[in-house]
Amino acid sequence: MFDVIAFDADDTLWHNETLYTIAQDSFTQLLSRYRAADEIEEELFKTEMRNLRYYGYGIKSFTLSMIETAIEISEGRIQGHEIRQIIGFARDMLNAPLQLLEGVEEVIRTLSEAHRLMIITKGDLFDQGSKLARSGLADYFTHVEVVSDKAEETYRALLARHDIHPGRFLMVGNSVKSDILPVVALGGQAVYIPYHTTWVHEVVANPHPEPQGYFELEHIGLLPALVERLNDQSVSHTSRIPR
Amino acid sequence: MFDVIAFDADDTLWHNETLYTIAQDSFTQLLSRYRAADEIEEELFKTEMRNLRYYGYGIKSFTLSMIETAIEISEGRIQGHEIRQIIGFARDMLNAPLQLLEGVEEVIRTLSEAHRLMIITKGDLFDQGSKLARSGLADYFTHVEVVSDKAEETYRALLARHDIHPGRFLMVGNSVKSDILPVVALGGQAVYIPYHTTWVHEVVANPHPEPQGYFELEHIGLLPALVERLNDQSVSHTSRIPR
Repeated sequence: MFDVIAFDADDTLWHNETLYTIAQDSFTQLLSRYRAADEIEEELFKTEMRNLRYYGYGIKSFTLSMIETAIEISEGRIQGHEIRQIIGFARDMLNAPLQLLEGVEEVIRTLSEAHRLMIITKGDLFDQGSKLARSGLADYFTHVEVVSDKAEETYRALLARHDIHPGRFLMVGNSVKSDILPVVALGGQAVYIPYHTTWVHEVVANPHPEPQGYFELEHIGLLPALVERLNDQSVSHTSRIPR
Repeated sequence: MFDVIAFDADDTLWHNETLYTIAQDSFTQLLSRYRAADEIEEELFKTEMRNLRYYGYGIKSFTLSMIETAIEISEGRIQGHEIRQIIGFARDMLNAPLQLLEGVEEVIRTLSEAHRLMIITKGDLFDQGSKLARSGLADYFTHVEVVSDKAEETYRALLARHDIHPGRFLMVGNSVKSDILPVVALGGQAVYIPYHTTWVHEVVANPHPEPQGYFELEHIGLLPALVERLNDQSVSHTSRIPR
């Protein structure tokens, strides 16, 4: 039934947001003599949003935004050795061992036996490439696409380029905004698997009150069974929305 | 004769290294009370090389390396407002209007009439995507590949993925190391068009003393004529090496 099953990477295949949370905690700690933690977080988030159109996503962008925020909040009084610590937070993130989510390896191996698998991920090309290499999963995927943004148009271009019919495309990810809604809008199918933490920027305000035409699973271990059900085509449009 | 003609982007289609040179000049100026310009440049280059495996290429990586170098060189005495200036250099680079090299638009338009054109560029995905959009050239290219590194293996995987026979592939670029040698090694053809400035890291030490099996042109305006000659197949292997 599906020509291609595509996966988001960060927080879908491996842990990622946790690294940002840890770095952000160290950052608020470092600046604690200037401001309260929640105010620092708010300033950092504002800086990140302001910089998004210059820097895009990823650890390097996050680090430049931390440095800029530290200078703002300290009104220029931040010291060289403290900025060095911020660069150290980035280094820790980049050096952190890659941790797959539970069950990922088996699920990917199982699905790869009967389907073409693909990764579609946002973020920094270099960083994502390095993570994929360290994941040990690279050989299971026929294509890896690192994109700047996951808008409907991005998916449309990508499906056209790979000659994939939207009705035969399944996207799996942890962001309703980036992985689910644009794919459903195109006529594709999508499986939403929430991660315990979602970056504020990825949270959609009130993402429609009624059934969306996508699936929600508690964890990725349940995916092969769902794909099998869908392949059997025995599932009607209404019954396949579990929410 | 060629299924695909691929172009490097930075300093092949548009000016890029110039932006780094300008930023680097401002940087050495900013730190002039700590060290001589050539020593600062040397330290910066060392930091960039050390960080390459963490950060990859691009403006954000360059900026993080400038900040780190400033802290090292000043022994932590660098001030917040000076770091802010360094972030400003990055902002200037990212905001700089994109300048095509002379003749690029016409050459690309002409070649696109009879060939599939592609961009293969190293660097930061977000930054390259933004430059391509601003270049006004995006529609002439059927594929754009932003890669982390331009090794022989990268080209091999890329040609395989796009189902391109190396003998029917022509690569055009300004770096002997990244655009020419790996392609020639694979059995492809390559046109080297030097840019007036080349980043030290891209300079190959003594890149073989004898004919390489690639072409060298003084500027991109000469490319359509060369491609036409090659398409006519009237050029023997020896005569097609102008050096």
